[in-house]
Amino acid sequence: MRSFTERLVEANRAVWAAMAGHPFVLGLAHGTLPEVALRAWVQQDRIFVVEERRVVAALRAHGLPPRLDDLLTDLDRGLVLEAEAFAQTAADHGFAPDAEPWPVCLGYTSYLLCAAHDGALEGLTALYAAERAYLDTWTAVAELSPADSPYHAWIRNWSGEAFRAFVTALGRGLDELAGAPSPALAGRLGVPFSRAARFELAFWEMCWSGRAWPG
Amino acid sequence: MRSFTERLVEANRAVWAAMAGHPFVLGLAHGTLPEVALRAWVQQDRIFVVEERRVVAALRAHGLPPRLDDLLTDLDRGLVLEAEAFAQTAADHGFAPDAEPWPVCLGYTSYLLCAAHDGALEGLTALYAAERAYLDTWTAVAELSPADSPYHAWIRNWSGEAFRAFVTALGRGLDELAGAPSPALAGRLGVPFSRAARFELAFWEMCWSGRAWPG
Amino acid sequence: MRSFTERLVEANRAVWAAMAGHPFVLGLAHGTLPEVALRAWVQQDRIFVVEERRVVAALRAHGLPPRLDDLLTDLDRGLVLEAEAFAQTAADHGFAPDAEPWPVCLGYTSYLLCAAHDGALEGLTALYAAERAYLDTWTAVAELSPADSPYHAWIRNWSGEAFRAFVTALGRGLDELAGAPSPALAGRLGVPFSRAARFELAFWEMCWSGRAWPG
Amino acid sequence: MRSFTERLVEANRAVWAAMAGHPFVLGLAHGTLPEVALRAWVQQDRIFVVEERRVVAALRAHGLPPRLDDLLTDLDRGLVLEAEAFAQTAADHGFAPDAEPWPVCLGYTSYLLCAAHDGALEGLTALYAAERAYLDTWTAVAELSPADSPYHAWIRNWSGEAFRAFVTALGRGLDELAGAPSPALAGRLGVPFSRAARFELAFWEMCWSGRAWPG
Repeated sequence: MRSFTERLVEANRAVWAAMAGHPFVLGLAHGTLPEVALRAWVQQDRIFVVEERRVVAALRAHGLPPRLDDLLTDLDRGLVLEAEAFAQTAADHGFAPDAEPWPVCLGYTSYLLCAAHDGALEGLTALYAAERAYLDTWTAVAELSPADSPYHAWIRNWSGEAFRAFVTALGRGLDELAGAPSPALAGRLGVPFSRAARFELAFWEMCWSGRAWPG
Repeated sequence: MRSFTERLVEANRAVWAAMAGHPFVLGLAHGTLPEVALRAWVQQDRIFVVEERRVVAALRAHGLPPRLDDLLTDLDRGLVLEAEAFAQTAADHGFAPDAEPWPVCLGYTSYLLCAAHDGALEGLTALYAAERAYLDTWTAVAELSPADSPYHAWIRNWSGEAFRAFVTALGRGLDELAGAPSPALAGRLGVPFSRAARFELAFWEMCWSGRAWPG
Repeated sequence: MRSFTERLVEANRAVWAAMAGHPFVLGLAHGTLPEVALRAWVQQDRIFVVEERRVVAALRAHGLPPRLDDLLTDLDRGLVLEAEAFAQTAADHGFAPDAEPWPVCLGYTSYLLCAAHDGALEGLTALYAAERAYLDTWTAVAELSPADSPYHAWIRNWSGEAFRAFVTALGRGLDELAGAPSPALAGRLGVPFSRAARFELAFWEMCWSGRAWPG
Repeated sequence: MRSFTERLVEANRAVWAAMAGHPFVLGLAHGTLPEVALRAWVQQDRIFVVEERRVVAALRAHGLPPRLDDLLTDLDRGLVLEAEAFAQTAADHGFAPDAEPWPVCLGYTSYLLCAAHDGALEGLTALYAAERAYLDTWTAVAELSPADSPYHAWIRNWSGEAFRAFVTALGRGLDELAGAPSPALAGRLGVPFSRAARFELAFWEMCWSGRAWPG
């Protein structure tokens, strides 16, 4: 029988396909991303990883099984490095690392944080959707990325062994806790999974189309 | 197969027996409770129901299935009436309704509130333990209570049909959500159940022995 | 000296002006709103009020001063009626009341819920921004609304005495708690105020432009 | 003018005095603590520091000012070492490091966690009370501790420079955020301070008197 997480990914195949085929993703893969979209992404994704540390903290506040707690402690440290890498990329390209979060960025991180506040299962499910979407999307397009592309290192990172091992461990921890959830619980947990995945896609669309605040 | 909630009650039989045989419970049933213990109970239990409204709110913040949300909205209203009934009893006996929470009272309500913050399943499980313990304990000793006892109405209330229907509905909603939890999840949820039940027993012990803050 | 809330409104004048001049707001005021925008608004705003009940619950979980707690208990009841009014409007217009939340709607409600989880001050500040924006915006355009417009009753509701009294009481309770906050606290609380206001504007933009999920 | 934190300590002088004069504290200082009380303390305080990591996480979930966030990240790492030191002491004395939390221990950690859930100010205030109480109490009795006492190293740790610097930095961060709170806010924050301090005293009383669960 397929695991809880595999069934969630299966039920969201259309979103997964849309992510791997999104012009932002393909642009980063081919190394042809316009500078303005790159800038939006670097600034907004840096905000995302800073806020993701709060998501990790909200999950750890619930008192997780030790292996999951250790995994998230490691993630917290990794997010510090990732924020620094985004700041370095901003410096290399000559734009400021700091920016105001755009609505979809702020909405996405708020949604993940709410899911984490809602409980270990809800929060881990939403976080897993975000991380698995990243792994699968960049893995799907990794072979398109020329070795001399300025973005090659990013893509190699999110399709590489270390990140895959982290996502796998996160999924295994979640599967152990979720087991075979009741229909009511499966329905409840399916919502943060698919919404987090759709927010991930909307995040790339936001970077691609430069969708800031109105007014 | 027994439901999730029935297995939890079964696993905590010793605590259930200790509650039904505790001198505070028997004293209230027989109508022989010393005034000082009654006063502690009325004041501390009034604090408990006021704080329980926060537990209900923390659970509702997670977005519950509609029937459970309606049930807890009703509970919130009922707790207002229960606090007023305690205040009336205090007035009848000539002592102040307000008091400082004693350590076990504050610890117990904090524990329930933390469980509610931890998630719908964790919080409902802890709340169910508290409510089911009340129902079963007062039901066990209801026949000992003389009709002319000043505490007869309290005991009739917590062993009566309306309260039984509420506890049953709460348990059914929890069972639907919990289903047949994984070993990891069952272990996780067993903790707030047994700890809430032990706090319930410790609460009566606190009222009986007058255990306030040291120093 | 101006109060805490008045200074926040003052600091966000540009967003307030953009709201009162937004084509969605003017369209509802003039009674010329296209059906597709009305439908988006009715469905998404119904989701908003349902989710706002979770925001109210998260705030009440913190244990508020009694007058604020009573005010929010009333708000919770009022939101049930408001959701029913939206459902009735949907029925009158022949479309379903239920829909999936769009990204800005889900992001906005998640942001408010996170603010409420973050604490009484943070959550009340964000909620006040949302409520005050509604009051001020509909008050600004109320005179534009013909008495025979199908949307006249909505606008009269959100610019009327009862709603004004609620917003005023909410602001007073918040001002009493916030007092004259330290620079660090004022900076901290300014963020949820301005972000909630910008989300309110983005919400109307979303309804006007029909911005659903990509993919 | 005295700072927010200094006024809180001043208002709770009686509890501070009771802590520094408590037989458990004096017994640890003089090196005359009975083995059974030492064992209770090592096991229960180890639970305390494990649970305190959840308190830290709940605070960090609110998004703290960077210096406070870094301080709490360091605290989280320090608590891991402290838990290990307790486990080592348990091994040295030939008893198990693990135990069930007793009611006052579970109530105290739950209370701190609830305060952290309630917001940055509430949670930092409660945490500061706990840490400051530790620093001041062990500092008050440090000179009583013979250099060859088996507990000398513990007392030196909690009265030493590194711990003092941490408590000072925590207080400074809290004072910057709290500023001169409104009467309503000062009243609100005074509660978690004095309750955390009283729980600290009750914790030592629990260890001294061996107060486990009834039943």
